[in-house]
Amino acid sequence: MNRRVSELGERGLIRRLREKFPSLHSIGDDCAVLPGIRCPVVTTDSFFEGTHFHRWWAPPQILGRRLLEAALSDIAAMGATAKWFFTALSVDPGIGVNWIEGFYQGLTEREDVILAGGETVRGERLGITLTVIGEGEDRDTILRRSSLHPGDNLWITGLLGRALDAPAKLEKAGGLSGKDLKPRSGFLSSAELEQLRAFLQPRAELELGIKLRKAGIRCAIDISDGLFSEASHLSLESSVDTVLEIDETLFFDSVKDNPLAASAAGEDYVLLFGAPVGLEFSSVGCSKIGRAETGNGEMTIFLDGERVSINAKGYDHLGVRK
Amino acid sequence: MNRRVSELGERGLIRRLREKFPSLHSIGDDCAVLPGIRCPVVTTDSFFEGTHFHRWWAPPQILGRRLLEAALSDIAAMGATAKWFFTALSVDPGIGVNWIEGFYQGLTEREDVILAGGETVRGERLGITLTVIGEGEDRDTILRRSSLHPGDNLWITGLLGRALDAPAKLEKAGGLSGKDLKPRSGFLSSAELEQLRAFLQPRAELELGIKLRKAGIRCAIDISDGLFSEASHLSLESSVDTVLEIDETLFFDSVKDNPLAASAAGEDYVLLFGAPVGLEFSSVGCSKIGRAETGNGEMTIFLDGERVSINAKGYDHLGVRK
Repeated sequence: MNRRVSELGERGLIRRLREKFPSLHSIGDDCAVLPGIRCPVVTTDSFFEGTHFHRWWAPPQILGRRLLEAALSDIAAMGATAKWFFTALSVDPGIGVNWIEGFYQGLTEREDVILAGGETVRGERLGITLTVIGEGEDRDTILRRSSLHPGDNLWITGLLGRALDAPAKLEKAGGLSGKDLKPRSGFLSSAELEQLRAFLQPRAELELGIKLRKAGIRCAIDISDGLFSEASHLSLESSVDTVLEIDETLFFDSVKDNPLAASAAGEDYVLLFGAPVGLEFSSVGCSKIGRAETGNGEMTIFLDGERVSINAKGYDHLGVRK
Repeated sequence: MNRRVSELGERGLIRRLREKFPSLHSIGDDCAVLPGIRCPVVTTDSFFEGTHFHRWWAPPQILGRRLLEAALSDIAAMGATAKWFFTALSVDPGIGVNWIEGFYQGLTEREDVILAGGETVRGERLGITLTVIGEGEDRDTILRRSSLHPGDNLWITGLLGRALDAPAKLEKAGGLSGKDLKPRSGFLSSAELEQLRAFLQPRAELELGIKLRKAGIRCAIDISDGLFSEASHLSLESSVDTVLEIDETLFFDSVKDNPLAASAAGEDYVLLFGAPVGLEFSSVGCSKIGRAETGNGEMTIFLDGERVSINAKGYDHLGVRK
């Protein structure tokens, strides 16, 4: 029996979520009371249906987990440990209660991050705000955008481009369904399927973030808004120039023919970090993607050895060596 | 020049808010990094236009402050100190930028609670989720719903009923405007005006919450969903019966003729707390409103000495002494 939220009402839904997910409002008080936190790091992310996700993309459990990982990625980028999170759900009353429960199932899958409280309101559009509280080692070792130094190499922790044309590709497949995420109706190449599964199942680089911190790294950011945008943040916040050298090996197979657009597409949730020359991270799945130079915050991009300029209209190969 | 959010775009709005309210995203990193917290208490509250507030009610600054106080009230009810808060704004692009700035002005008026980070997304409906992080003394002295003991007296920290028919009364006044909150067009009695000003300008009982904790009080809740609902929570969570004795002196003048409806109306943001017999709080503006008895969670209500029963259809005077 799949009832709609409108049949349960707001209070009925809250009661049902509390029964199924005891950590939600579990203490019964106005606030969650957490154990002491030495160095709290906190992030807030909102996701709305239609803007940040679509229900037809994938089963609710996959979507819930995906949004949590996106929020956790901010904690990973600080080199911190994620510990608790809070939900503020805005729920369209026409949605089936089973969908909401599947969504919370996804949100609560991880055992290392605890759903410590929540809020539920009725809204025309399905949406959720996630507030995550993590813990850093101490203020001095937090990874920051402003800690890039001239001479540092720039690295990324995984392949880029999973979001490029993902909505259109998902439409071609009629969305992915089941636990193994198979195309619901249409056809996808195996490269496209690999990309979409990665797009729907990002994993916040929490362990790697902590490893980097322990290795002495102090500058990182997660790639949620695209490589160019995030590298540009590092440049500006650190007041150094960055030089990016991108080539097709850095991307998912299905977007290799479009590396510039893939670098701008965002939602990769891998880390971009700066490391002193001599430190090597290839063995833990990272790729060198550029370096920092003395300067005042400019970014230069080379694609397969050719300089590229980015402007509001798109990209131009400057073709220095043409 | 009052531009609309749609002219600035999401990024333009964020940039402008960051300029005006430097604590917002101020550190430039993915997360806010806070000082260590001994006993963190955390609450999340969502407010949407049309459901929880209307723009025509009052100037944006008043509304922003009002929503913050509502969220802080949860922290007050724990006997904790409010310290930081985070905003997740969902903004209708048709709204004037000046309105948003006024709203944030209200949200950032308090100097004791710091806006430590935020998120902004585009939405059809104006709404905001506030996550507040406070600090308690330690886990043992947190005020809880489950700490009411048989024999305790029940107290409230202020007058009740400010929300009763407040939207209709505000409509009669065409909303309240200016810093001194005067009726915009219609007419209100002075009692109605007093009620509406209190409704629009609640003050979270943070100082009193801490005082109560220091005086040895261990059971409190804030009255956000109405006295009956909150007293019922205390009864159930503490597994004791409660007896409420309400009379007209407990209410704002404009709702005195309707004390039962006023007790159910909510949004009073005063505290309801339990205290051992012998402790007196009249001198700090509190009123005794009942007591706890051995039992298993039932609530009994007396209005001016007569027992009243509450059911789904409303209230009945049982008329024991008729």
